[in-house]
Amino acid sequence: MNNKARRAQIIGTGLIGGSVALALRNDGWHVTGRDIDESRADRAQELGVIDEIGTDSDADVTFVAVPASALEDGITEALQQTKGIVTDTGSVKTAVARSFSDPRFIPGHPMAGSEQDGVDGADQRIFDGAVWVLTPTEGTDDLALRDLQTVVSSMGCDVVTMAPERHDALVAIVSHVPHLTAASLMCLADDRALDDAPLLRLAAGGFRDMTRIAAGHPDIWLDICEENREAIVTVLDEFADRIHQIRGIVADSDRSGLTNVLSQARRARTNLPSRYVRPQDLIEVRIPIPDRKGQIANITMLAADCDVNVADIEVAHSTEGAQGVLVLIVARAEVQRFLAALAGQGYKPTTRELA
Amino acid sequence: MNNKARRAQIIGTGLIGGSVALALRNDGWHVTGRDIDESRADRAQELGVIDEIGTDSDADVTFVAVPASALEDGITEALQQTKGIVTDTGSVKTAVARSFSDPRFIPGHPMAGSEQDGVDGADQRIFDGAVWVLTPTEGTDDLALRDLQTVVSSMGCDVVTMAPERHDALVAIVSHVPHLTAASLMCLADDRALDDAPLLRLAAGGFRDMTRIAAGHPDIWLDICEENREAIVTVLDEFADRIHQIRGIVADSDRSGLTNVLSQARRARTNLPSRYVRPQDLIEVRIPIPDRKGQIANITMLAADCDVNVADIEVAHSTEGAQGVLVLIVARAEVQRFLAALAGQGYKPTTRELA
Repeated sequence: MNNKARRAQIIGTGLIGGSVALALRNDGWHVTGRDIDESRADRAQELGVIDEIGTDSDADVTFVAVPASALEDGITEALQQTKGIVTDTGSVKTAVARSFSDPRFIPGHPMAGSEQDGVDGADQRIFDGAVWVLTPTEGTDDLALRDLQTVVSSMGCDVVTMAPERHDALVAIVSHVPHLTAASLMCLADDRALDDAPLLRLAAGGFRDMTRIAAGHPDIWLDICEENREAIVTVLDEFADRIHQIRGIVADSDRSGLTNVLSQARRARTNLPSRYVRPQDLIEVRIPIPDRKGQIANITMLAADCDVNVADIEVAHSTEGAQGVLVLIVARAEVQRFLAALAGQGYKPTTRELA
Repeated sequence: MNNKARRAQIIGTGLIGGSVALALRNDGWHVTGRDIDESRADRAQELGVIDEIGTDSDADVTFVAVPASALEDGITEALQQTKGIVTDTGSVKTAVARSFSDPRFIPGHPMAGSEQDGVDGADQRIFDGAVWVLTPTEGTDDLALRDLQTVVSSMGCDVVTMAPERHDALVAIVSHVPHLTAASLMCLADDRALDDAPLLRLAAGGFRDMTRIAAGHPDIWLDICEENREAIVTVLDEFADRIHQIRGIVADSDRSGLTNVLSQARRARTNLPSRYVRPQDLIEVRIPIPDRKGQIANITMLAADCDVNVADIEVAHSTEGAQGVLVLIVARAEVQRFLAALAGQGYKPTTRELA
């Protein structure tokens, strides 16, 4: 396929639409875009995100990247205006998949985002290694699906194809219910802190990690919870059962039951796939650090000084307390000189296999 | 008080006991230590963590830093052997506070830890800025409490004094129930992934953050859940009510109810106190980065190159997708040159007030 000749249309030139436009334009596509808010389309053109504003009836692919409330209209328009493939970027897929059985329509969900809103935050790099789920309907044409898979892959995404209902059930588990859980936990602590101010002083790293996503903006969740209501309610019921179960285990001082749950969780979390992991080449270096200014800068400088590339970094707080552990993923071939340099500065690094 | 003349005794020369010993020795104290496992005490002496092995009947303060099962015996011994203050370092306080009414005994809980086990991981820096809770009993002498507060502060800890029952209720909320919640969520996803392998490929940053603590070793949690059973069960019931409540809100498509919960959570999480925060001097810089090698090293190098000190760093993953946001806390006085340098390399940083 010669991308140079290809034409894309973007309906909704916000963060996701703009990022798709950039990725395709930089790959040689001609990109037309529009937005219900004309100033946003103007801005997209001004930033060089799109070639022109308007409708392109010759578009090979149209991406409908609009809020949930405008989605069905956008898809209908795109199917009428063009003879090409049409896809959307909504977070929930069953409803939209049921509404359109056109062979050229393939619902999609790029699991990519940014905390920046709007076309000014558009950046094709948000797709690097991101999962982009495609959920063909019963009517979707095989060739159209294959073509869209190729286009999405070309943006650097990891394409996963599955049925819409399955997508919605899975994101309820790994995204929607965790979000509602984090918010519930944060509210519980917050309500309690009203009567007991020191409570939040006792909140250490583990609590911070667990509630971090609750700091996100509520808006998108209103639509998500409405559209994926059924799956979310089902998973919340399952989760409530699990909480009930662990409550019974604790109330009964059932040590072996507790060991089972915690051991399964530990094993599963440790094995959680990560995009960065190539176990054969990489190794994890864990460095206990006090929560004190300059430690992280110091350690990353040290890595740079001894020419060690840091593939990933995170601060894993200990269950309790102020001390964190700086976790770096580095090349196995480079780790020895890094460990030596760390030890030379009084750090006590340990290493752990990623596999 | 002249610390040079003071004597401490450590029962249990593991990570916490060893770290206390180091902090006091480096402050001029004479430290005697022992451990039920003689090889651990030998190792502590070999490492210079303690001055000598044995019992010190002249100890001004004895720290009983042993596992829950050995705690009561250790405290009893220390009260019999010395005329000084006795404290312990267990994670749960009500039971031990009820068992001892000696005026010289003050239960304590250093909220400090490390993922490294044993005296080889001992490091006084784990106490830098950590909260150390003291939970005086009804029998505790005021002067003894004041003296111990001074000693603990001298190790760099932030001393919080409260009743034992209150301590146990608060840690159930901010530590024990969050841990059990993370484990339950991880198990739910893991069980589902058995039938549906792609599930975990869809697990993005938010899920990783929420389940991170579930990777911890189960052992200490068996004792904690047993000792703090009552408070944990109470909080699990409250939490189950919250889950039930949010389930109702979602099932009813109650947008205003959902907005209330999510907005409260967002506000509370954003305001969660952090040790690093001095809002008048610091500012948060948020830099979207693709999950790609070298980004973090590059940015911290850039900070170093323009002489900007990084007070704290974390990677906040977006709700979905591969892209993360590198969050740095830097001095307000230095932020402008850092932002300019970042923009010069094509990053799109935003800033946010900490207050």
